[in-house]
Amino acid sequence: MGNLVIVRHGESQWNQQNRFTGWTDIDLTDNGQQQARRAGRALAEAGIRFDLAFTSVLKRVIRSQWLIVDEMDCMYIPVISHWRLNERHYGALTGRSRADVIAEFGEDQVWEWRRGYASRPPLMDRQDARAPARESRYRDIAPDVLPLGESLEDTVARVQVFWQEAIEPVLRQDKNVLICTHGNSQRALVRLLEPRMSDADVARFDVPNGVPLVYRLDRDLRILDRRSLPIAEATSSSIL
Amino acid sequence: MGNLVIVRHGESQWNQQNRFTGWTDIDLTDNGQQQARRAGRALAEAGIRFDLAFTSVLKRVIRSQWLIVDEMDCMYIPVISHWRLNERHYGALTGRSRADVIAEFGEDQVWEWRRGYASRPPLMDRQDARAPARESRYRDIAPDVLPLGESLEDTVARVQVFWQEAIEPVLRQDKNVLICTHGNSQRALVRLLEPRMSDADVARFDVPNGVPLVYRLDRDLRILDRRSLPIAEATSSSIL
Repeated sequence: MGNLVIVRHGESQWNQQNRFTGWTDIDLTDNGQQQARRAGRALAEAGIRFDLAFTSVLKRVIRSQWLIVDEMDCMYIPVISHWRLNERHYGALTGRSRADVIAEFGEDQVWEWRRGYASRPPLMDRQDARAPARESRYRDIAPDVLPLGESLEDTVARVQVFWQEAIEPVLRQDKNVLICTHGNSQRALVRLLEPRMSDADVARFDVPNGVPLVYRLDRDLRILDRRSLPIAEATSSSIL
Repeated sequence: MGNLVIVRHGESQWNQQNRFTGWTDIDLTDNGQQQARRAGRALAEAGIRFDLAFTSVLKRVIRSQWLIVDEMDCMYIPVISHWRLNERHYGALTGRSRADVIAEFGEDQVWEWRRGYASRPPLMDRQDARAPARESRYRDIAPDVLPLGESLEDTVARVQVFWQEAIEPVLRQDKNVLICTHGNSQRALVRLLEPRMSDADVARFDVPNGVPLVYRLDRDLRILDRRSLPIAEATSSSIL
C-alpha cells in the first residue's frame, strides 16, 4: 500500500494580491517558500518517504516541490513535470484582480465562475500573447488540446488523462507519490480519487497552501484513509 | 544542430576542505550556489536555451541545476537524474582529507590515483554503511553494477552506458541539452565526445566549478565547436 500526498503550492505573489492567476507563471512569496519548507518538514517528521514526484510546469509549484524534497533530504527522486497538472485556466479573467472582475460582472457571476463546477469563464483570445499555444514551453503540444479558459469540470477532464496514463500506474506499483499542484488541479485529483463526492463538494473543497493531504491507498486505489498533516503556523490564502 | 552544455556543480563543502568526496552527498557552499547562479545568468545572456536537463543523483549537482534553470527562467524543462552521472567513486579514500591520504600513501601514489586514467583507489568495504548498495536511493539497481571504487576509466565505462541509452538519442533529435555533473563525470563525458583525446589529456582535463562548457554538435554528434563561457568572478576549487 502506497502513500499519495497532494500538496498545493505555497502562497504566490498573486494569491496575495487576489488576482486570477491560472496559467500565469507567478512565483512564491517569501511566506509561500516558508509554507513549502514547513510542509517538507512535517512530511519528514511523519515518516513519509517518496519514490517519485509530479508537478505542473508552473514555477510556484516546481519551487514548492524543490523546497519540500530539500527539507526531506530526497532531492534525488525522479520528478515528472506536466502541463496537465497546471492550475485551471482562467480565460479572459487571467491577470485581473478579483475586485476589478466583480466591479464589471457582479458578485454573483464571479462567485459562480469561482465555485460553480461547470461554469466556464469568458475565454482568452486565441491571439492573446498569453495564450498557451503561443508559449514556447507548450510548443510540443497540439494547440487544440491546450485550453483558453476552463470550468472546474474541464480541468478535471484534462487532469484525468494524465492521472490515468501516468499517476495510476505508479500508484498500482505501491510507490509513494508526491503531487505538487494548484488549488483547482488539487480539486480535480480529489474528484478522481473520490468519485462519490458531489460536484458542489468538489468545487468547495479547500486545503490551505502547503498543507499536505495524505491518502493511504490499497492496490485497487481504494482509500484506506485520508488526513491532512497539521502544520505549525501555516496560513491560508484564497484560491482564485 | 543542438547545443550540449556541461556544467560542473558549484563548490561543495568538501571541495573547500580538500576531502575526497566521490559519492558522499555533500551540499554546495554559499560560494558554490553563487557559482551556479552565475553560470545560469551567463547561459541566459549567451542566448542558450534548453529542452532537457540531466543530473546525477547527488545534491551538489541537483541544486546547481535548480539554480541554473531558476536564473534562466526555465524551471519547467524535464530533468532526468541518474546515478550513472555521479562523481567517480573514490572507494576507501571517500571522506578522507587529501593531506591525510598523502601522509599514509605518499604524494606520488595520491597523484597517481587522482590523475592516472586507469588507476583504481583501494575499494570500499562491501559492508561499509556508505556502500552504494546499502543506500536506499540505489535500491532498485543491481548491487553488482554499483561501484565500490573506480578509476577514471571505470567512470567512463559506466557513464558511457547512460550516454548511449539516454543522452545520444536526445542529441540526435537536435535538442538543446544541459548536463550538470561532477569533475570526473565531466571528464568521462568529454572523453565520449572527443574520443581522440589521449588518456593523459582526459585525466588532466579541468574546467572550474560552474563554468559552462558549450558544445555545438551536428546530427552525427561531430563537434562543430567547443567553448567555455566566460564567467565574471568565478573561482575554481580542486577536483578530488
